Amino acid sequence: MAQKLTTREQDYSKWYNELVDRADLAEHSDVKGCMVIKPYGYAIWEKMKDVLDGKFKETGHSNAYFPLFIPKSYLSKEANHVDGFAKECAVVTHYRLKNAEDGSGVIVDPDAKLEEELIVRPTSETIIWNSYKNWIQSYRDLPLLINQWANVVRWEMRTRLFLRTTEFLWQEGHTAHATRQEAIEETEQMCEVYARFAEDYMAMPVVKGLKSESERFAGADETYCIEAMMQDGKALQAGTSHFLGQNFAKAFDVKFADKDGKREFVWATSWGVSTRLMGALIMTHSDDEGLVLPPKLAPIQVVAIPIYKSQEQLKEISEKILELGTKLKSKGISFKFDDDDNRRPGWKFAEYETKGVPVRLAMGPRDFENGKIEVARRDEKTKEVVDFDGVEAYIENLLDEIQDNLLNRSVKFREENTQEVDTYEEFKLKMKSDGGFILAHWDGTSETEEKIKAETKATIRCIPLDRKAEEGICMVSGKKSMGRVIFAKAY
Amino acid sequence: MAQKLTTREQDYSKWYNELVDRADLAEHSDVKGCMVIKPYGYAIWEKMKDVLDGKFKETGHSNAYFPLFIPKSYLSKEANHVDGFAKECAVVTHYRLKNAEDGSGVIVDPDAKLEEELIVRPTSETIIWNSYKNWIQSYRDLPLLINQWANVVRWEMRTRLFLRTTEFLWQEGHTAHATRQEAIEETEQMCEVYARFAEDYMAMPVVKGLKSESERFAGADETYCIEAMMQDGKALQAGTSHFLGQNFAKAFDVKFADKDGKREFVWATSWGVSTRLMGALIMTHSDDEGLVLPPKLAPIQVVAIPIYKSQEQLKEISEKILELGTKLKSKGISFKFDDDDNRRPGWKFAEYETKGVPVRLAMGPRDFENGKIEVARRDEKTKEVVDFDGVEAYIENLLDEIQDNLLNRSVKFREENTQEVDTYEEFKLKMKSDGGFILAHWDGTSETEEKIKAETKATIRCIPLDRKAEEGICMVSGKKSMGRVIFAKAY
Repeated sequence: MAQKLTTREQDYSKWYNELVDRADLAEHSDVKGCMVIKPYGYAIWEKMKDVLDGKFKETGHSNAYFPLFIPKSYLSKEANHVDGFAKECAVVTHYRLKNAEDGSGVIVDPDAKLEEELIVRPTSETIIWNSYKNWIQSYRDLPLLINQWANVVRWEMRTRLFLRTTEFLWQEGHTAHATRQEAIEETEQMCEVYARFAEDYMAMPVVKGLKSESERFAGADETYCIEAMMQDGKALQAGTSHFLGQNFAKAFDVKFADKDGKREFVWATSWGVSTRLMGALIMTHSDDEGLVLPPKLAPIQVVAIPIYKSQEQLKEISEKILELGTKLKSKGISFKFDDDDNRRPGWKFAEYETKGVPVRLAMGPRDFENGKIEVARRDEKTKEVVDFDGVEAYIENLLDEIQDNLLNRSVKFREENTQEVDTYEEFKLKMKSDGGFILAHWDGTSETEEKIKAETKATIRCIPLDRKAEEGICMVSGKKSMGRVIFAKAY
Repeated sequence: MAQKLTTREQDYSKWYNELVDRADLAEHSDVKGCMVIKPYGYAIWEKMKDVLDGKFKETGHSNAYFPLFIPKSYLSKEANHVDGFAKECAVVTHYRLKNAEDGSGVIVDPDAKLEEELIVRPTSETIIWNSYKNWIQSYRDLPLLINQWANVVRWEMRTRLFLRTTEFLWQEGHTAHATRQEAIEETEQMCEVYARFAEDYMAMPVVKGLKSESERFAGADETYCIEAMMQDGKALQAGTSHFLGQNFAKAFDVKFADKDGKREFVWATSWGVSTRLMGALIMTHSDDEGLVLPPKLAPIQVVAIPIYKSQEQLKEISEKILELGTKLKSKGISFKFDDDDNRRPGWKFAEYETKGVPVRLAMGPRDFENGKIEVARRDEKTKEVVDFDGVEAYIENLLDEIQDNLLNRSVKFREENTQEVDTYEEFKLKMKSDGGFILAHWDGTSETEEKIKAETKATIRCIPLDRKAEEGICMVSGKKSMGRVIFAKAY
């Protein structure tokens, strides 16, 4: 194994970058801002996708696929939307290359200029609502509940693997409803689906809340979000669900006839999570030795390493371990036996530690003779020697225990790093010294929000859905506030 | 239900277009050449993806993800490759829009011009081999077996839904090997994986073969393919697997150190299938009433429709049918009960016929009283009234029977439309009158191939892998031939 990782305390940002590299999750490509998601990283994303896709289908959604390209004029149809996305998009202007006449290579063929430029989708509301216009005629066509798994492009100047990349993978749900109420319920339902996924699978506690106006999706009437706390105390927006009102229906003239034949604009939602979740997963649990994965999302849940001097010992141990492997697989536990003769056990231990495999088994000749096996857990870095007989049940329980432990540990961390503050002086001090989430009163204006951001770099992460009703006074303006909101520095 | 489809005999091409529309599979978007894959069409594609993905993993491949964009200069690194793809690609030249100063809308910001243009991937060999360069150092890093599910763009002037679209979805496998032999074995293995998928799941017989030089992938030393016959006698290339030799390794300077430390160029393969398979599936089995789906790829395998006059009858029948539905689902059979009160049974029968649902059940009050149920099969358009008790086993068998029947029927059709021809005169006549596959001797030159194509529109679909050794004389040039090749007009 190569040298140790930079520790979180030394340099959190460097630790993250090194970890993503060493755990073989992703790397920068030569194309500015675009990443390569490597097989091990992609395997984690695939597990996330599978779970989420199942949850979308359970809640009545179907998948479909819409074009990568959006005509430039479509983006402009919704005024706020174009303001939000025009500044960061990839523009296709030509459709052919040709050989340069001077033999210097291929050049863009000037004769192949598009009449109207195409935008590589930064999000698909416009192209999708342009289709919905033809799909929706009557109340019988509603609700329309569609999701798409796709790549999107937002031109970013400063990028970080998974957290902010020019191209990223995501899902975007786009639904159409007959009533405002039903659309709001859908928006809330999908926020809840994301929250359950974050907590039950990623073992990452989140706060559900509403965005302030300035942080809303461009084109939304209301943005719901889930916000998580990373180990450096910064917030990470892990998913959003937008109530779009009738904005896109009006922009694309999408009306439906109700039971009485009256024609009304349709109500809309959209919601998405992306490969950014990978960044959140990494930063929630991992430690200075490398990645720590919750068992439910680990591509390899259990790895077994034989320790031997002779080929005969290897053979004996292998038989035992493969027999155990079969039992584990029959329980739906993913298992890898690493008997690669080119690598020493110590190297392998470090390798699977770096990659966050939740449970590591090791068996040497003495264990074999005594009917024992060593079981190490990645989350707490503890190990035990246990009876080989019945170890499969022990492991099954241990995986559940690790999953629970990671969530509990993260909940505890968040609690320890969340505080209420009442004066702006204290706020500035605490935001600088402690970081984390600060619950404070705010008067609800963008001016105050801007001022706080400019002076402290902290933003309003959300107005928590479950905040307690508590009248107070805005810490900056002294005006009335109806409850505390969450401030934090954010990714 | 709307009016009947144009029949295959009246106008095969129109029949196809209407069917894709009526069965709700896909539609053209406003973006030239780009399609929208609608939920029902996408559900079929998802089933294909799941099966193929499983087969790729069984054969040792992992998924990963590489950038959408390819720097223009990369395309040029492999000489044949750029010739093959430069003429049909989408070029990104700018990364920002801005408001026009005259207030006329958004325009491309001339200050945001890229230094080097980016190509939207038409295929990913170049961007992937640019990564492999860093991933491969020693024989220990080989074989590298990676697949990617992605969208690609090839600018097409004439498009048809699924068969030829500017953007399409596909998978592309890209592997690297230490020896020529191993790479060839991989190429052949993946061709076989595609053939098994086509026959075992799509119920579509295919000929495995090699492409002639002129039809090879741009950058390949050898292209293996599977060729299917559509109901109009035309051929459709359903999948390709390329042996790339050391061409990309040389273009991107990818060498590995063997066990003795000697550095050698790596050997490569790539292989892919796309949403084109949807077109192949449709055209292999469907009839003048609409889509016909093999049960293994049908999103809904069994639909049940209640026939009733009173709500009480509906209640009784519903209970029975839902009980059956539970049994079917427990056997892994996908089942839909359509009790929509807004539609009449006749409308529903036509709807599910158009959508190709393999088995349709209907139960009316008399069936209910007599303990019977009507079972209709889509493939042969026959129906039977059978005992309700034990019908789940009957249905399970029937689904297998339909799957087999569709394959057998397609095999028979292909046999009936394949013939051997020995003279060019006869060839021209038969190609015009009968179409289908014609097996004929060819001298192996591109000149002869070109001449035949120009004069008859028929191309060499492949040199079958299992052709019998049969010396002969080229029907055009009279030169020696070592065996017959397949000629056909093609999609």
